[in-house]
Amino acid sequence: MAEQRERTAPAGGYARLVAELPATVPFIAPEALERMSGVPIRLRLGANESPFGSSPKAVAAMREAASGTAWYGDPESRDLRLVLANRHGVPFEAISVGSGIDELLGLIARVFLNPGDAVVTSLGGYPTFNYHVAGYGGTLHFVPYTDAWQNDLDGLAEAAHRTSAKLVYLANPDNPTGTVFGAAQLAAFIDALPEQTTLVLDEAYVEFAAGLQTLPMSHCMNRVIRLRTFSKAYGLAGARIGYAVTHPDTVAAFDKVRNHFGVNRVAQAGALAALEDTVFLADVRRQVAAGQAQLTEVAHRLGYRPVPSAASFLFIPVGSADRAARTAEALLQRGVFIRVPGVAPLDEGLRVTIGTREQLSQFAEIWAQVDRELRG
Amino acid sequence: MAEQRERTAPAGGYARLVAELPATVPFIAPEALERMSGVPIRLRLGANESPFGSSPKAVAAMREAASGTAWYGDPESRDLRLVLANRHGVPFEAISVGSGIDELLGLIARVFLNPGDAVVTSLGGYPTFNYHVAGYGGTLHFVPYTDAWQNDLDGLAEAAHRTSAKLVYLANPDNPTGTVFGAAQLAAFIDALPEQTTLVLDEAYVEFAAGLQTLPMSHCMNRVIRLRTFSKAYGLAGARIGYAVTHPDTVAAFDKVRNHFGVNRVAQAGALAALEDTVFLADVRRQVAAGQAQLTEVAHRLGYRPVPSAASFLFIPVGSADRAARTAEALLQRGVFIRVPGVAPLDEGLRVTIGTREQLSQFAEIWAQVDRELRG
Repeated sequence: MAEQRERTAPAGGYARLVAELPATVPFIAPEALERMSGVPIRLRLGANESPFGSSPKAVAAMREAASGTAWYGDPESRDLRLVLANRHGVPFEAISVGSGIDELLGLIARVFLNPGDAVVTSLGGYPTFNYHVAGYGGTLHFVPYTDAWQNDLDGLAEAAHRTSAKLVYLANPDNPTGTVFGAAQLAAFIDALPEQTTLVLDEAYVEFAAGLQTLPMSHCMNRVIRLRTFSKAYGLAGARIGYAVTHPDTVAAFDKVRNHFGVNRVAQAGALAALEDTVFLADVRRQVAAGQAQLTEVAHRLGYRPVPSAASFLFIPVGSADRAARTAEALLQRGVFIRVPGVAPLDEGLRVTIGTREQLSQFAEIWAQVDRELRG
Repeated sequence: MAEQRERTAPAGGYARLVAELPATVPFIAPEALERMSGVPIRLRLGANESPFGSSPKAVAAMREAASGTAWYGDPESRDLRLVLANRHGVPFEAISVGSGIDELLGLIARVFLNPGDAVVTSLGGYPTFNYHVAGYGGTLHFVPYTDAWQNDLDGLAEAAHRTSAKLVYLANPDNPTGTVFGAAQLAAFIDALPEQTTLVLDEAYVEFAAGLQTLPMSHCMNRVIRLRTFSKAYGLAGARIGYAVTHPDTVAAFDKVRNHFGVNRVAQAGALAALEDTVFLADVRRQVAAGQAQLTEVAHRLGYRPVPSAASFLFIPVGSADRAARTAEALLQRGVFIRVPGVAPLDEGLRVTIGTREQLSQFAEIWAQVDRELRG
């Protein structure tokens, strides 16, 4: 009897919310794909990591900070928040630092949602947001992208009214399509939302949007949560650090439940140094723009029309979900990791991270081979 | 009207659980104390960070890994889990890696508790556990420590039966008292718990417990969650990495909701290297043991009797909560950071982290001064 008990899960069971969830992960990691396929990944172009690395100043700051790792980081991330507050023209109290946008999305779902509350997002939008909403018992309502692979702002606002949504999620620039809206469109969208709806505006890729006029960070802070990260343009994905800018009341609500000592000390040092290195950032942006042009040309040569992108990746529709899936699989067998979104009709496209010039040349060659074989 | 709306918190409000919580943090950071007191902290002996730093091999591994920070870490932490599984003689699937024990405590509360579920812990035990339980709506039931500053195992088991507790928390060695139980006592305690109760066994300080026979990690995995960290003996507090060992079903439940890409890439490299450096770990343990003896002697000279400690700190009752509070305040004014637990009767004691020989000599001098002034 005792032995039998050893082999069963806890007799008390798990929380209802968790017990009812399916076993799922928002993304399968490249390491896991590698272990499944048995083929080492030589071109890692599927997780929108920066192939241009992090600023040498950030790396130096992190190397320096590594020797102080015996000490906890400042749980208030005060130095970093002061710099960010100054940069964005918002009060210090309007900023919350977390272990990347992913952690902040979980915190937002937790702080805003009662089980059953409605949440609106685009059909095929960022899976990790959906994962956290489901994890806190929210009810997701999906609005399809437009035919131009854009988030359907009218549709999202309509759905928010129809469902009395607590949260609406929008990535701008969008992931996985790379499409983008300017400040005026966003302001109109915010005005069109119900008063009780908070907009989660994920700007992970905003640094890549050349010439984009963004909304001031102070715009409607009581109805908008802006999310920024050091994972993309700043090349610090592995450090796990990002931040939210929103109404200080909401930051205070985060503070009631967040993991206060959760942000890595070395990451805080790296982020601060990365912010200073504007020359490096400008160079990354320049290289990403060049890479977009290069990859667009490659796609054109194969007869595909990538969606114009304001982000560090290109979304390339290839005509059918079957073609996209078989392309990704064939690429993986050749050590090339890209993503195909899991939801129709986005599953007709390849999402390819902008690599270095050399990486994109390699990718072009392998993709052309694969494409030929699949057509043949 | 629009302007007025700008100045109010989100009209939709927050989740009930969060709205009902008080604004509180489990610990005020030394950085925050420093900002409040205006006195720079020169002896940081209040957060049980290791004054002996991290293994030079771990620091080297982290410095090396820093240049790869543009890449996300493996969300499955496979390399680290394989090494830990081998070391602890448990299946790979029985291990979950998180951003320190604090994150894992939040995850445990989330995965096990429905709002209103009973949780049992010692009165004055680890505040961060209580914080997360409250954050997920659990109802805490507290059992006082014994007169010997030990967790009252009989009392905890009785309370678990009385309240039909879903979780019981025990730190072993204990924080903040440093007292400890051996394997036989723990096994009997587990047997005495109700079948539906899961024991959260926080072993953050277990590496310091000289000669302690610990329970095998595989003991009753369906009823026990073991928690280990790299923050204490391994000196990697700032890296935020720790792990849980428990039934694979529970690890799978964690995987349904946890922040999959949350563990810093550099931290994973540091942890792996730290595990290898057994010589460094042995040296830290030796120095902590010597420091305990040194600090005990200092306390004796002032007429105090520290509680014998199996951890990297000493709990020193000073006779009254007033005396303890005034001592901590006077020390802080002199740049010395220690902790006084917030709950009676533990608030009669000072919890002092074992510093280096030199730090403890400085502490002895300042404490003697302060103590003289408070008595006089």
